[in-house]
Amino acid sequence: MKINTSDILSAVNQYGTPAYIYDGEQLVSNYKNLKNALPNFVDVFYALKVNPNVSLVKLLRSQGACTEVCSITELEIALKAGSTPEDIIYLGPCKKDYELKRAIELGIYAIVIESETELERVSSFANNAGVTANVAIRINPDFSAEGSPWKMGGRPTHFGIEEKQAIQNFGSYLATPNIHVQGIHVYNGTNILEAQSVFENTSYILNLYDQISQKYHYHFTMVDVGGGMGVPYFQNQEPLDITMFKELMVPLFTSFHDKYPDTRIIMESGRFIIGTAGAMAVQVNNLKSNHGKLFAVTDGGTNCHSAAAGSGRVVKRNFPIQNISAGSDTAKKMYQVSGPLCSPDDIIGRNIELNEIHLDDILLVKLSGAYGPTSSPVLFHSHGYPAEILLYQDESFLIREKDTSMDIINKQIEVDFKHTKLITN
Amino acid sequence: MKINTSDILSAVNQYGTPAYIYDGEQLVSNYKNLKNALPNFVDVFYALKVNPNVSLVKLLRSQGACTEVCSITELEIALKAGSTPEDIIYLGPCKKDYELKRAIELGIYAIVIESETELERVSSFANNAGVTANVAIRINPDFSAEGSPWKMGGRPTHFGIEEKQAIQNFGSYLATPNIHVQGIHVYNGTNILEAQSVFENTSYILNLYDQISQKYHYHFTMVDVGGGMGVPYFQNQEPLDITMFKELMVPLFTSFHDKYPDTRIIMESGRFIIGTAGAMAVQVNNLKSNHGKLFAVTDGGTNCHSAAAGSGRVVKRNFPIQNISAGSDTAKKMYQVSGPLCSPDDIIGRNIELNEIHLDDILLVKLSGAYGPTSSPVLFHSHGYPAEILLYQDESFLIREKDTSMDIINKQIEVDFKHTKLITN
Repeated sequence: MKINTSDILSAVNQYGTPAYIYDGEQLVSNYKNLKNALPNFVDVFYALKVNPNVSLVKLLRSQGACTEVCSITELEIALKAGSTPEDIIYLGPCKKDYELKRAIELGIYAIVIESETELERVSSFANNAGVTANVAIRINPDFSAEGSPWKMGGRPTHFGIEEKQAIQNFGSYLATPNIHVQGIHVYNGTNILEAQSVFENTSYILNLYDQISQKYHYHFTMVDVGGGMGVPYFQNQEPLDITMFKELMVPLFTSFHDKYPDTRIIMESGRFIIGTAGAMAVQVNNLKSNHGKLFAVTDGGTNCHSAAAGSGRVVKRNFPIQNISAGSDTAKKMYQVSGPLCSPDDIIGRNIELNEIHLDDILLVKLSGAYGPTSSPVLFHSHGYPAEILLYQDESFLIREKDTSMDIINKQIEVDFKHTKLITN
Repeated sequence: MKINTSDILSAVNQYGTPAYIYDGEQLVSNYKNLKNALPNFVDVFYALKVNPNVSLVKLLRSQGACTEVCSITELEIALKAGSTPEDIIYLGPCKKDYELKRAIELGIYAIVIESETELERVSSFANNAGVTANVAIRINPDFSAEGSPWKMGGRPTHFGIEEKQAIQNFGSYLATPNIHVQGIHVYNGTNILEAQSVFENTSYILNLYDQISQKYHYHFTMVDVGGGMGVPYFQNQEPLDITMFKELMVPLFTSFHDKYPDTRIIMESGRFIIGTAGAMAVQVNNLKSNHGKLFAVTDGGTNCHSAAAGSGRVVKRNFPIQNISAGSDTAKKMYQVSGPLCSPDDIIGRNIELNEIHLDDILLVKLSGAYGPTSSPVLFHSHGYPAEILLYQDESFLIREKDTSMDIINKQIEVDFKHTKLITN
């Protein structure tokens, strides 16, 4: 993010904290960096699960991004953001009947099939609707991406059909009534920082495509090689080397494209595109010393940003944090930065050196564009969703209001027990 | 929960899944069990952070429960549920200016002060409003409850004022302008299943009260001994022995009450009261075998119930799960029960034996009344908050609708970039 801290302070002054701030220029630039490192015949699909705000998706769409969705609500957001059905793929291990029916009705580019059971369901719904559904078969490969914190391939998961079974049964997939198989999909890792790892993973998937095409003499029209390109959050991590990425990926895709010129090549990306384009701004509302440690207590912790709190990690490391209310020449002190929850784990900065903090100062938690509020327990203690603000072309846009008390209360329904036989003793 | 599975199936058929089902009779009975194990001069304060639904709070309030809140929204819910300001305490390490001002304006029983800084802020706001604010001083004791997964006492946390400092400075707290100190508050552990541990913890706090009263010759009017009484979630755990609890606590409180007859004794409870009164109902929308394991993929996992998914735990153990669509005499199989997220960690049942599952079956995750959707990332993948249903006195009440796509989308604000200089290349 290259935004002035004064613009951020001015935005949070207007819209309140906790707030997520997005740098529109950085977002566009990240997307273009990825797109420019790939041949122009490769389509980049933005993964809405990482950050589903309609205005951010719209901005990416204006640059040409396609969309990858994981629920019917994400699909509707993609449409509202200007995506068209032919630029939408829909994946995820659990799709409910009404979700599949809506995707079939829209005729999206591919429903990504996560099991043989799901293929039968899609076939049946398409048959009832009198249409043919476009699908891609997701394969759980006998291969796992190096350098990903998740090992997704080659072990039991609820994703896709395992490789041997898929290769063996592909003929029946192709013969399923009311189904048009566009191709295959593999997603095999997350937050990968090694270009070589993405290359090897992609090579494996393209070979798999080749193998199934040959075996069934079938003219597929799509291969989705996943993505998983990451962001360096912590010290000692290096960003993905985009030059090396380009040097590796361009010849790989070009040679595939020469052989399969009609096959749409899809790369998915979420974190790489948006991770560095967002930050969380929180206000310090309490300051204290306790058993020799200084605590700065803020209005946004685990509830707004569970990733920064290290939820689910055994070793918790700090995201970069800055006190943007203090001059950079002020003295530094060691702090524990906590959120507002009644849990001793609600710490987003452990033993972190920051310019001296005063009450009401604004702290900025950086590298927070991906998996921010969307994957956090925003309603814990009924605090509610934070504000979201887009700074772009010297303007600031509120793209989601902070939840008010009434927003939260009005969703609950108060029972009138007067007509109920209440227990009274 | 003693509810018939047919009533649950009928409720989820009407209101959809994922859904939380609450047994009103069980809720009332749990509250009464606790109340009856305590002398009648001890007040039980229900902790809304555990489950803030207004109708559940209202039902507890109808039985006499007071309320403990951790945010201004929880405070408004407590009022809506029929609580009165004199039966509300408000704690939490981060209270924003407008939250403190509202609590002062309402004249609640006690704002629980988490630091000397906060005491000054409350004093200043009360002064501006021309009133005296009722507070309790939260002490971080030099003592930690045995048998709690959280060690909260005797180590640095963002809660309360450390014991030595509090004892030393109490005179200045009492002399703070526009402040009336009701007494002290200590919260020292969570999910404790040993009555002896609660007893020792409470003894320590009552002694602390005695010590500070003597030292300052001050007539306090309140002591909040916290709570932390738990629920046995896993095999080999035994429920809190309520008979032993009563045998230990009644004489302890009685002797304290004899000495301090005007002191209101407060015990907090959330999990113990509501944990066993709720269950999550999810639907199986995908079934598959992968690398030798059977997966049942449901519409509610980590996103609706992060505790059942073991988020934040190194060792993940299963909550009790039942396939309520299958007869209990059907064959059992070993399953992995997953949620709908694109994460291999989204598993709520690991290697769990269940009656054979068919597509669309309803699984019930039990012991889920506490820390369910409120502490889960309900908007991940934009799935939204689950439905909440109260079954009580042979009636079923929808107490929160499942979020619709439009509920979620309408909270986002779409920027009209037409007036913005979009980057076009």
